[in-house]
Amino acid sequence: MKVAIILGSDSDIKIAEKSIEILKLLGLEYEINIISAHRTPEKAREFALTAREKNFGVIIAIAGKAAALSGVLAAHTRLPVIGVPVSSQDLGGMDALLSTVQMPPGVPVACVAIDGGANAAWLAARILAVNDNDLALRLETEAQNMALKVEQKNNDIREKYNQ
Amino acid sequence: MKVAIILGSDSDIKIAEKSIEILKLLGLEYEINIISAHRTPEKAREFALTAREKNFGVIIAIAGKAAALSGVLAAHTRLPVIGVPVSSQDLGGMDALLSTVQMPPGVPVACVAIDGGANAAWLAARILAVNDNDLALRLETEAQNMALKVEQKNNDIREKYNQ
Amino acid sequence: MKVAIILGSDSDIKIAEKSIEILKLLGLEYEINIISAHRTPEKAREFALTAREKNFGVIIAIAGKAAALSGVLAAHTRLPVIGVPVSSQDLGGMDALLSTVQMPPGVPVACVAIDGGANAAWLAARILAVNDNDLALRLETEAQNMALKVEQKNNDIREKYNQ
Amino acid sequence: MKVAIILGSDSDIKIAEKSIEILKLLGLEYEINIISAHRTPEKAREFALTAREKNFGVIIAIAGKAAALSGVLAAHTRLPVIGVPVSSQDLGGMDALLSTVQMPPGVPVACVAIDGGANAAWLAARILAVNDNDLALRLETEAQNMALKVEQKNNDIREKYNQ
Amino acid sequence: MKVAIILGSDSDIKIAEKSIEILKLLGLEYEINIISAHRTPEKAREFALTAREKNFGVIIAIAGKAAALSGVLAAHTRLPVIGVPVSSQDLGGMDALLSTVQMPPGVPVACVAIDGGANAAWLAARILAVNDNDLALRLETEAQNMALKVEQKNNDIREKYNQ
Amino acid sequence: MKVAIILGSDSDIKIAEKSIEILKLLGLEYEINIISAHRTPEKAREFALTAREKNFGVIIAIAGKAAALSGVLAAHTRLPVIGVPVSSQDLGGMDALLSTVQMPPGVPVACVAIDGGANAAWLAARILAVNDNDLALRLETEAQNMALKVEQKNNDIREKYNQ
Amino acid sequence: MKVAIILGSDSDIKIAEKSIEILKLLGLEYEINIISAHRTPEKAREFALTAREKNFGVIIAIAGKAAALSGVLAAHTRLPVIGVPVSSQDLGGMDALLSTVQMPPGVPVACVAIDGGANAAWLAARILAVNDNDLALRLETEAQNMALKVEQKNNDIREKYNQ
Amino acid sequence: MKVAIILGSDSDIKIAEKSIEILKLLGLEYEINIISAHRTPEKAREFALTAREKNFGVIIAIAGKAAALSGVLAAHTRLPVIGVPVSSQDLGGMDALLSTVQMPPGVPVACVAIDGGANAAWLAARILAVNDNDLALRLETEAQNMALKVEQKNNDIREKYNQ
Repeated sequence: MKVAIILGSDSDIKIAEKSIEILKLLGLEYEINIISAHRTPEKAREFALTAREKNFGVIIAIAGKAAALSGVLAAHTRLPVIGVPVSSQDLGGMDALLSTVQMPPGVPVACVAIDGGANAAWLAARILAVNDNDLALRLETEAQNMALKVEQKNNDIREKYNQ
Repeated sequence: MKVAIILGSDSDIKIAEKSIEILKLLGLEYEINIISAHRTPEKAREFALTAREKNFGVIIAIAGKAAALSGVLAAHTRLPVIGVPVSSQDLGGMDALLSTVQMPPGVPVACVAIDGGANAAWLAARILAVNDNDLALRLETEAQNMALKVEQKNNDIREKYNQ
Repeated sequence: MKVAIILGSDSDIKIAEKSIEILKLLGLEYEINIISAHRTPEKAREFALTAREKNFGVIIAIAGKAAALSGVLAAHTRLPVIGVPVSSQDLGGMDALLSTVQMPPGVPVACVAIDGGANAAWLAARILAVNDNDLALRLETEAQNMALKVEQKNNDIREKYNQ
Repeated sequence: MKVAIILGSDSDIKIAEKSIEILKLLGLEYEINIISAHRTPEKAREFALTAREKNFGVIIAIAGKAAALSGVLAAHTRLPVIGVPVSSQDLGGMDALLSTVQMPPGVPVACVAIDGGANAAWLAARILAVNDNDLALRLETEAQNMALKVEQKNNDIREKYNQ
Repeated sequence: MKVAIILGSDSDIKIAEKSIEILKLLGLEYEINIISAHRTPEKAREFALTAREKNFGVIIAIAGKAAALSGVLAAHTRLPVIGVPVSSQDLGGMDALLSTVQMPPGVPVACVAIDGGANAAWLAARILAVNDNDLALRLETEAQNMALKVEQKNNDIREKYNQ
Repeated sequence: MKVAIILGSDSDIKIAEKSIEILKLLGLEYEINIISAHRTPEKAREFALTAREKNFGVIIAIAGKAAALSGVLAAHTRLPVIGVPVSSQDLGGMDALLSTVQMPPGVPVACVAIDGGANAAWLAARILAVNDNDLALRLETEAQNMALKVEQKNNDIREKYNQ
Repeated sequence: MKVAIILGSDSDIKIAEKSIEILKLLGLEYEINIISAHRTPEKAREFALTAREKNFGVIIAIAGKAAALSGVLAAHTRLPVIGVPVSSQDLGGMDALLSTVQMPPGVPVACVAIDGGANAAWLAARILAVNDNDLALRLETEAQNMALKVEQKNNDIREKYNQ
Repeated sequence: MKVAIILGSDSDIKIAEKSIEILKLLGLEYEINIISAHRTPEKAREFALTAREKNFGVIIAIAGKAAALSGVLAAHTRLPVIGVPVSSQDLGGMDALLSTVQMPPGVPVACVAIDGGANAAWLAARILAVNDNDLALRLETEAQNMALKVEQKNNDIREKYNQ
């Protein structure tokens, strides 16, 4: 099953690139599209309505400000939708965070951190790994790799700063 | 032309009643509906797409939390949409306010105060009065009435508190 | 009918330029003025009191910090007043947003997003289009143009990022 | 010289009563009025324009939400204006605080705490005491009284709680 | 596969009951435990480390204030962890929301709304339905039921309020 | 060594009682006083200047709103000062939190949670336990007791809610 | 009578320069000092205790973060104290604003806008002008000058932007 | 006894350097490590469990965003843990502040200012000085040095700015 990445605007591409990097690392298939909940609402609806039959397993929705995108997609599909609130100069992404996370009962969105494109992909992988032991193993390996990287940086910093 | 009042949930009815009271005071026609952007998205779309031909002039959208309702309606119509963010116990309506007001360029929502059902109606009336001198006169009269009421309260308070 | 654009300060001109760009695109007449609610209060009052007779249909008020401008104008006219809160370095425009949107019952302001000069113009156009089918058609056309632009960007991004 | 107390709405009277209590304690003359910046703007203007000649020395302005009152008064007079932001259920008075305190250069408001009716009166007294040694002495005495009251409460609490 | 519900404290049980109600409605198995990230950290670790082998498919973590629970669980498992921030009197749950959602890259938490116990369950079901067509159908049916309930309430409100 | 508990106002006594309960549980000596940084500044200064010689080891300062108390005490002593921000109706204690925690370099305050009277005492005990193995053991025992209590509640809830 | 300008840190000098510019414009005497409420508390106390006898009429206190300076000065004098909260990179000055404005009853601070060095001076002048008709006249003249400058900028902008 | 400095990520090193500078100034031993509560949770646990026996007296934990580090360490040790919330571009460190300070009863963290690496060290020294008169004296001396530096800057600024 593939991961869908939907951007509310092409200005959100930097956040999507973080998602793509992780999905590639984990060998997951993905497809990216710009679909605006407010400017191309018909397309948002159609994409969500047909996402499952097009073999998507998870949808990542990346949007800023009054970020309705993840909620609108979640309203038209029963697939899990991951929302990534995008920061902006004025309110630092607090608007997008609240617009994404404060969904009413019955239509959930899985919200990750502001600008959290990477974690959206990690979460998508965890979701797909629920029934995929092979992917679960790759996630375990990557978790160990992350720990190793922290260890390496720890060694560098200990050498430089400890007395 | 009529005013459409759309509630995201029946729990928002107290705010809508404030709108209705003002619309009645001003002799404006209205029609009220519960339509959820997230639970009945198809109906939200259809309502917005046909609102102008059904002789609505303005749409008031009342919703709380991740309040996508006004934005979703504004995406499917070119009528002016007034958004009323509804307060809740947790964040006091800050989530609904930001979800309503921080719309992206091209799809505007006219946001009023948190729980501002009355002002949504006053604003709807101002919008309809742009081309309706009679309604404009009634608004002027009501503005004078408001000033008179402030004066009466002022007299009461002066009598009670001044030395 | 014309659109009035009022700036609280000449430092808000960048936001007003976004309004002007949209008004020109839609072929709407406008007039711009700097009027400060706090430094030139007499002029704010006079402008608002005579706005309707000078053939203005909507007023856009652009101001930052303790942004009283839109409310003060709305107090002296019955025309619809659109408020644009302007961001600043310190609080990111949260002060201007709350000062603009949290109006008391009876004197509404139609608040748009922080720095939302473009949407103020789009909203002004929607208001004027309530009784102007020609303008309503132009808005519909521009909505379709916006959707097309999103599609073009989508094609670019699909080509560059999809596998 | 007298202290003017201006309420934006009769619902703010509880806060004004706190001001009155302190002004009476200090033997200062005051006059209270309800004047709304948004509903009775003409009266706000006239009051401010003539306040100095009516022998007012300081103006206390008490208002909630998009609290323009103190700023509007300060725009029409050169007397010191003290602003008291009033809390509300939704945002706890953050809106009134920012609307009152974030004034642009040239038109200052002396903002006190949310619901700070008492401190508005204490501040008014400090201002009038700049040229009034007698009042300054009374303020000094009251400061000592406050300290004594804290001491008495300290004794009570020490007796009850210390081992 | 079962859904694990972990409470940071027994005071969060009201939120968990909302999860349980939805899980029962959808016929999903669950197991509830109180495990505190701060007071029983060893147990949090052990639970997370063995969750997959105990046949859990998703973990719902419900916690307030400096809500480390969901993140700590996510650090010790590769299962998807859904975080529910719990509101409190002081900051309305903003602390729990930010502590839950702002996770660093590599260790994602799927955050839902403040006090969003119901949506945590709906999201858990969507995740389990990715590979379970039967559950996906039940979700579709429930989505239609939700829409029908909105319709019924709409009829009630139309009858009562429309002219 | 004793723990000093300083209240900014007698209205903060409920928070202090939480501190006292924990200090008693751990067998630590304490002394409580009401000292206001703003109303009895001389006493605040004197208390801090002589605290070490009076055999205090830690100072707990409990205050709300513009909570200067902990910082003022920390300015006049070199003992560790623990600040407890107290919540209020309007801003939920955000004002007290920021006033307590955002101290400038050189004059630290150890800030605990809003209304965190209990944790102030737990932290005071941890500080005194740095050189007191006996107290450290008691803290370890209480930590185990806390874990046991969580376990007991877990058993209750498992019995009641699990299938 | 002179105006005292107190800086909490030399890093606040840019804000003080804005005060100085206005005080010079109005021909008011001033004296500037760096006094930290936390690092030089004894000096803060002494300055406040003797300020009136040294012929100061108003104190401007400029400080950032947990800005206790204005409150500490106000605790030791009965002169009016104007607090200027200074912005910082992290919270944009919200910490300093709340630390300055949320003073407890009895010890008022006249808070102006974040970084509002200019308005602190304007407010100081308004306070000194209560009993100084000459200064009141100069303030009136400067208010007219400000209005004229707005008019000039209005003319520039009208020429450039109007159709 | 030594001070442990734990970084959640190598990107927090600038904040740790401020701690190191103060610890060196005071002649205190320290050891620095990068340990992530989320990426290397096992190591966080082990470090905390053995910190006291390794002769650490205080732990400084520096972390950003959903900063669980200080709380996780405090859960596994009875030593005092000082938490330093690290700022980020989006929310300015408000997320890290709330995640660090809002700890549940029983597991305290001593939170200092956002990016407050220096004050974490000053606080660690105050804690170690409770039973170390020599260190207490050095702290007193440094406090006087700080006051002297303020005085020097005061002289510079007085010379440059006073009339």
